Amino acid sequence: MNIAVDAMGGDHAPAVVVQGALQAVIELGIDITLVGDNKILSKEIDSKVSSGHITLHHCKEAVQMGEPPLKAIRQKTDSSIRVAFELAKKGTVDAVVSAGNSGATLAAGIMTLGRISGVERPAIASLLPGENGPVVLIDVGANVNCRPAHLFQFGVMANAFASSCLGIENPKIGLLSVGEEECKGNEQVRLAYELFEKSKLNFFGNVEGRDIFSGDVEIIVCDGFVGNVALKLSEGMVKIMTKLLTMELMKSVLGRTLLLLGRGPFERFRKKFDYEEYGGAPLLGINGVGIVCHGGSSARAIKNAIKLAAVYVENRVLEKMVVSLNTVSGSMSHADTA
Amino acid sequence: MNIAVDAMGGDHAPAVVVQGALQAVIELGIDITLVGDNKILSKEIDSKVSSGHITLHHCKEAVQMGEPPLKAIRQKTDSSIRVAFELAKKGTVDAVVSAGNSGATLAAGIMTLGRISGVERPAIASLLPGENGPVVLIDVGANVNCRPAHLFQFGVMANAFASSCLGIENPKIGLLSVGEEECKGNEQVRLAYELFEKSKLNFFGNVEGRDIFSGDVEIIVCDGFVGNVALKLSEGMVKIMTKLLTMELMKSVLGRTLLLLGRGPFERFRKKFDYEEYGGAPLLGINGVGIVCHGGSSARAIKNAIKLAAVYVENRVLEKMVVSLNTVSGSMSHADTA
Repeated sequence: MNIAVDAMGGDHAPAVVVQGALQAVIELGIDITLVGDNKILSKEIDSKVSSGHITLHHCKEAVQMGEPPLKAIRQKTDSSIRVAFELAKKGTVDAVVSAGNSGATLAAGIMTLGRISGVERPAIASLLPGENGPVVLIDVGANVNCRPAHLFQFGVMANAFASSCLGIENPKIGLLSVGEEECKGNEQVRLAYELFEKSKLNFFGNVEGRDIFSGDVEIIVCDGFVGNVALKLSEGMVKIMTKLLTMELMKSVLGRTLLLLGRGPFERFRKKFDYEEYGGAPLLGINGVGIVCHGGSSARAIKNAIKLAAVYVENRVLEKMVVSLNTVSGSMSHADTA
Repeated sequence: MNIAVDAMGGDHAPAVVVQGALQAVIELGIDITLVGDNKILSKEIDSKVSSGHITLHHCKEAVQMGEPPLKAIRQKTDSSIRVAFELAKKGTVDAVVSAGNSGATLAAGIMTLGRISGVERPAIASLLPGENGPVVLIDVGANVNCRPAHLFQFGVMANAFASSCLGIENPKIGLLSVGEEECKGNEQVRLAYELFEKSKLNFFGNVEGRDIFSGDVEIIVCDGFVGNVALKLSEGMVKIMTKLLTMELMKSVLGRTLLLLGRGPFERFRKKFDYEEYGGAPLLGINGVGIVCHGGSSARAIKNAIKLAAVYVENRVLEKMVVSLNTVSGSMSHADTA
């Protein structure tokens, strides 16, 4: 197994990204291909790591965070993210991990590896810390406008991912809406509801914003606009609530003592809502394995994203997704007309 | 001042709703008209409260939570929520508070009192606990599909509300999107961005989900689908995070001691994210004052919603909103064409 890491992508690239890759080599025993400018990267490599497990693959360009994704990927033919996916296409690596421009990562994945047959819109699935384990939220930003058939396909893909990669048998799927009743929501959601209900998937029905973390469902389907807002909102809330709790406790001597003595429970609490634990969000629907990380990813988040990529490859999630898509092809072809 | 309370609306109606109304009478000195079934309500009234401050207004019907709003309001001509707004229309009461079916409350408000001249779509504005004070999120569920002009009007209305009711001078307005850059978002959001930028409002630009609680802006504009998901998600997170923190602390003797000793800071922390503090969400754009409460509102939430209604009336928010809408009429008429 060899995983390509876009060493030039991310707010703290290349230093922190390389650190995360090194951690994956040392702690997880995964071989890594770092894609980026050799001159810069060679300075970042720790001599302690056996060079056999780290390969440097040189390229001249990098896509910046603010660049229009499609244009950047088309024009920068030697950019780290595009080259990383080309290595995957050739079979040199098994998966790609990037903390760079997520739109560009998606575009590079689709352009280089193509889509799984029958998939109209690949999507980004994010793993959230639910009350009873991880919850898959799909889509979190790849598609800001979706037709009902797209929402249905997101559910099918997430179903294959959750069962084969997260080990959740027959995961319950919820459709994110503004009320639990079938009649609630906008037109896309109401029509997607019908598609899910007719399918053989374990469809729970509509869920609301408050259900994302409740553990009632393991998969939550929504368009990329809503999903992106929900993902960023929940991340922001974890940060602000942790900060305010700490501030409240720091106000008094007693509080400060509590904070110090209570490090165990507070640490466990923080860890429960720690997004770095999952590290990255898989691109579902591309004909290969790509994991998107936060721009601001820490080394630990990068390491965990590499781990997720490895589990994805080992468990043959891609093959299982193809089978899963074929199995529901009856509902899919129906969905296509919606 | 007299405020009508829909005594039959809400998951815990009428008992808890009546309790909240009584608290408003006793603690805030506000006169209340309880609208509902006299037989049921008279049993709930505490004899300790001077009857002069509580009026019962009888009606036979009530709209249930799951009913289609428009149909219910049209058919149930003697329902508590419709009758409450009719009292407002006649001038018998100054405002209406309801914890019942929010769609029906909106429909009754629009049907009975009408819209403010020039407003196409009234919206529900929710008050969230931001880092530096309340943040107005608009719309949180009245309009699941919005045109750019509607989003712009939401901003104008929330601007008038925040400045005259919350005392925020020249509030900063953010447009909820999936990235800060102007080009980010779906088409509605991109076009709404242009309308805001051309206006004289204090437009901050696009904000993301994580910015809702950051305090960078005091008003956040979005369509009712996204706003409803965001509102319920944030409420759900506060609940689950508080619960999990308590659970972690309860696991050990030390933790339980900390929880007991630390009641001060924990209480302040909980209060910071306490949605009951704001109690209700104003309906902006109707030609009168209506406050929507959560179905599951506690007595305290009902009391605080009544308080918000009273501040709304006292500060003549409605008149100021009309002026504000006229002032930006240039941009409004431009907006109408979008």
